[in-house]
Amino acid sequence: MVYGYWGKVLRVNLSTGAIATEDLDEIFLRRYIGGWGFIAYALLKELAPGIDPLGPQNKLIFTTGPVTGQAIAGGGRNMVGAKSPLTGGFAGSEVGGFFCAELKRAGWDTLILEGAAEKPVYLWVKDGQVELRDASHLWGLETADAQERIRGGLGDNLIRVAQIGPAGERQVRIANVIHDVNRAAGRGGLGAVMGSKKLKAIAVRGSQKPPAANPEAIGELARWFRDNYKATGSGVFATLGTMRMVRNNQNAGGLPTRNFQEGVFDEYEKISAEAQTNAYTVGRDTCFGCPVRCKWIVEVNDSDYPVDRKYGGPEYETTGSFGSCCGVDDLRIINRAGQLCNANGLDSIGAGVTIAFAMECFEKGLLTLADTGGLDLRFGNGPAMLTMLERIARREGLGDLLAEGSRRAAARIGGGSLAWTVQVKGQEVAMHDPRVKYGHGLGVAVSPTGADHMHSVHDSGYQTAGGIEELEPLGILEPLPFDDLSTAKVRMVRYAMIWRVLNNMSGICMFHAWTPQQKTEIINACTGWDSSIMELWLAAERVYDMARAFNAREGFGPQDDLLPPRFLEPLPRGPVAGRGFTGEQFIAARNKLYELMGWDPHTAAPSRAKLEDLGVAWVADLLEEAKR
Amino acid sequence: MVYGYWGKVLRVNLSTGAIATEDLDEIFLRRYIGGWGFIAYALLKELAPGIDPLGPQNKLIFTTGPVTGQAIAGGGRNMVGAKSPLTGGFAGSEVGGFFCAELKRAGWDTLILEGAAEKPVYLWVKDGQVELRDASHLWGLETADAQERIRGGLGDNLIRVAQIGPAGERQVRIANVIHDVNRAAGRGGLGAVMGSKKLKAIAVRGSQKPPAANPEAIGELARWFRDNYKATGSGVFATLGTMRMVRNNQNAGGLPTRNFQEGVFDEYEKISAEAQTNAYTVGRDTCFGCPVRCKWIVEVNDSDYPVDRKYGGPEYETTGSFGSCCGVDDLRIINRAGQLCNANGLDSIGAGVTIAFAMECFEKGLLTLADTGGLDLRFGNGPAMLTMLERIARREGLGDLLAEGSRRAAARIGGGSLAWTVQVKGQEVAMHDPRVKYGHGLGVAVSPTGADHMHSVHDSGYQTAGGIEELEPLGILEPLPFDDLSTAKVRMVRYAMIWRVLNNMSGICMFHAWTPQQKTEIINACTGWDSSIMELWLAAERVYDMARAFNAREGFGPQDDLLPPRFLEPLPRGPVAGRGFTGEQFIAARNKLYELMGWDPHTAAPSRAKLEDLGVAWVADLLEEAKR
Repeated sequence: MVYGYWGKVLRVNLSTGAIATEDLDEIFLRRYIGGWGFIAYALLKELAPGIDPLGPQNKLIFTTGPVTGQAIAGGGRNMVGAKSPLTGGFAGSEVGGFFCAELKRAGWDTLILEGAAEKPVYLWVKDGQVELRDASHLWGLETADAQERIRGGLGDNLIRVAQIGPAGERQVRIANVIHDVNRAAGRGGLGAVMGSKKLKAIAVRGSQKPPAANPEAIGELARWFRDNYKATGSGVFATLGTMRMVRNNQNAGGLPTRNFQEGVFDEYEKISAEAQTNAYTVGRDTCFGCPVRCKWIVEVNDSDYPVDRKYGGPEYETTGSFGSCCGVDDLRIINRAGQLCNANGLDSIGAGVTIAFAMECFEKGLLTLADTGGLDLRFGNGPAMLTMLERIARREGLGDLLAEGSRRAAARIGGGSLAWTVQVKGQEVAMHDPRVKYGHGLGVAVSPTGADHMHSVHDSGYQTAGGIEELEPLGILEPLPFDDLSTAKVRMVRYAMIWRVLNNMSGICMFHAWTPQQKTEIINACTGWDSSIMELWLAAERVYDMARAFNAREGFGPQDDLLPPRFLEPLPRGPVAGRGFTGEQFIAARNKLYELMGWDPHTAAPSRAKLEDLGVAWVADLLEEAKR
Repeated sequence: MVYGYWGKVLRVNLSTGAIATEDLDEIFLRRYIGGWGFIAYALLKELAPGIDPLGPQNKLIFTTGPVTGQAIAGGGRNMVGAKSPLTGGFAGSEVGGFFCAELKRAGWDTLILEGAAEKPVYLWVKDGQVELRDASHLWGLETADAQERIRGGLGDNLIRVAQIGPAGERQVRIANVIHDVNRAAGRGGLGAVMGSKKLKAIAVRGSQKPPAANPEAIGELARWFRDNYKATGSGVFATLGTMRMVRNNQNAGGLPTRNFQEGVFDEYEKISAEAQTNAYTVGRDTCFGCPVRCKWIVEVNDSDYPVDRKYGGPEYETTGSFGSCCGVDDLRIINRAGQLCNANGLDSIGAGVTIAFAMECFEKGLLTLADTGGLDLRFGNGPAMLTMLERIARREGLGDLLAEGSRRAAARIGGGSLAWTVQVKGQEVAMHDPRVKYGHGLGVAVSPTGADHMHSVHDSGYQTAGGIEELEPLGILEPLPFDDLSTAKVRMVRYAMIWRVLNNMSGICMFHAWTPQQKTEIINACTGWDSSIMELWLAAERVYDMARAFNAREGFGPQDDLLPPRFLEPLPRGPVAGRGFTGEQFIAARNKLYELMGWDPHTAAPSRAKLEDLGVAWVADLLEEAKR
């Protein structure tokens, strides 16, 4: 008996309709854990280098971890992965909610979707019964409507749905995969991959309790968390949710403002968590098994900007992207933008930052009213922003270009605008300015998914006792300043960044302030292993390096591990005005990170020795084969 | 409050008589833990490269770990270190008994002895009272006599003594430091260093319970061990002690016989644990805090070969070295040889294997009766072996040459005899033939102390569930054959070998089959840390690499990480006749180990990146300074 998993992969070929089941053995499970581990394994083994991410050769993978679906706080996560149409490299995006647990309860650890359907379909998984069904009637629907139709059609309101909206259908490269209509596997353009396969949705209903080796231990940990989380780093999420970061980052001088040109937004109070709560918050929501309830539900009763509570509410990333980053200080408009993203299946970071880029181009004259179809796309013009957002989802006018993401748009706009894109590997940077947390910037630059706040380290969280993570058990004994790119800091980033990847592999939410030891206990309670922080950290490094190796095989190199030029300009004002680093300083630190990670300085790929040390010599073999 | 330590170093300058106390802070303690950690730190920081190991610039260090002296099985260990007069490199040798705990109870974590006295002295440490006393009356005495005189002179029979015998006084390069008259810090020639300083002994009496963060947790672990050790890998030590390895290695085909020319000894039954028990065993002995009682006390009432129980009894290493390795099948003689080693302060492995080498030279005609002073030094001639042993201790005749160890002796004997020395870096190989456990051979070749069975990995022990160590929490999930030098095997060796170093750093005996998780719990219970297997493993790698760096600074390189030619000859007979590896195969595996360890292939030193990753960039700085 394998605990913590079913050891089952469901493979569905959308071209042929073939449906197959595959088994995973325990050594495989323990070596790759889940999440990115299973995704990177499948992409490396099954994708030929150079395939078109929007072609039928790409594979779309939904996967879980050993904790997904277990009755414990933080086990409400699943991952979606593929070759990214946005970056051309590895995509692996995690998401909470209830779809994750339902998939697990249906008896599956992983879904692999390959090929492409000729006409729209959706996948219906009811425990072991798996069926591809026609989705012609769903194509074009917004996500809430589609979910309702699916549930109605199947006669079960407890069905959980992961789906694309109109943006994914149109293969918008910043389209996401919406779960439960208000959670997003947001990054990497995975919605476009799903759209390219003409797969509108996956509907799941399960009835089996996932196997656990030690349910008593899980229960004990779950009760401990329920009774104590308010005193841990998770406590803050219970009070003002993620939107509290508006104030935090403003105070730190790093609230991304007007396309990251500044780090303070004078109107920040108007878009703060407190303002939202006072005006529009109508409730709270949570994910499977979680007592924290970090999610705020909003409702706006305004005929110009109607916002329905069914789409949840904007998190900090959405608030920052459409708020300060676009210079918009009207929460009605930000809430509406959030709803449009969830209804259309658009990544709010990618969309907000791409629009902010377009606003900068407009203000600097590289885009004109003719280009924008008459929209006065200045920073702060909220209605114009909303219109442009809808045009991106529908690929209309300039929206069709921005639907390609800021990097591709800049290539067409020209005029030096590429320097204004705030992206790494083509993916837009989230609402965390590296100039106020240098360590985060390092992680953002090297993340295999492109700029990604989920797979880096927030200097702050890691350096506070009782914060999101504590570093002592990883061997980092001394705190270091945020504005530090020393070798010691690089080392701290390396150990913390890799540990963070374990979240998605195991299915644990990063908002849960489990200590490394507790995470290990949770995984052991689920699986029955005698694993350790060391084994799990090494597994996370293994998997991180597999994702890096995937990118290397696709031709990525050191030139792709750079921060955008914007972050080499010092912050112009605010509490840390003048703070910043030069490109040389940053590259020196990045190269040091390469060294400590065991990455080749020329190819930026993990060295053979490192891959062998991590027990995946086969990955080194693949890289060598690809060179021949 | 620092738990698990006193945070106190006692520094004694034997040239000037100056006695000083130094403090250690908690970050230092947690980073270097103890044992090899403190030794390597002091040697790197305090010794100029190239100093004479037998000159006053060398420093002799006695140190402990956080578990030393705590009331738990396995915490009865201390370490002795210096620059080795045998290898010219790092020496760090561990030892059990009661001296260790007494030193800790006296309030000290570490003693550093520097300079050299003009006439014999001994150090008397009674808690915080420290005194250098005249030892003229002790010089020349055998160890039991010296201990008795010290105790008598100070009027306290509970004083614990670490000392040298006549061999150390004469700076025999295979002399050791005898603790409690029957435990040896055996390897590296540390007795010669102590002799060069004219320091006969260290006498200690302490009255303070070492501080522990969580005595209840220590007590619980100790009780668990007492009640359960028989079912763990420690159980076998309780039945036949270490001598059971005679039969085990014979059965495996790797019982070192006639200077490792063969792996089976037809008369092995006569020197087996069972034969000993039937004839000479009169009791059992143990170390501080340990219920296993692995040590067998022997007595031989024979006028030719009298053996007194006060000197304990031979362990497997002694039995093999003077038994099968010298072709001797008479336990009376082996027991007598063991006593001579303890009385004179000689390393039984170094002495036995050096005599075996001389026997091979004698049989092959490179040593004659004229050279041996008339001794018929053929394999199997027990009386001649005993005589030669005494001559080594007294540096008489050929003994004066053999007192230099086999490598230096071969350089003088010439005639190709160097190829018959079974040593690495000048230190003789213990009774574990790499041809039946290839992984062990790798560890022996690269150990910074020269050939050393304590700082390598016994393939067998690591591969048995419930064995000495379990590897799964270190990320090694699959067993591998003993006769394997594959990359996967090299990786296994790397992770297991480094973990083993934690034993001496923490003060835990390697015979205690604590799992990695339990060792971590013990260290945390002593110190109050929230350390992890990962943090401790990385600390062990840090310290291992510091020892390697010390050697690199002394000019060691890849040429010093070779097995002796003997092990490149296949085993000629026995159950695995023909088994072996070529030099090319071995070097390829060793080079792979370099790669996985992050050692420079040209210098065999840890790379700057590796040292930085381990948080000791200062070591890389030292190496670079030394090159200038």
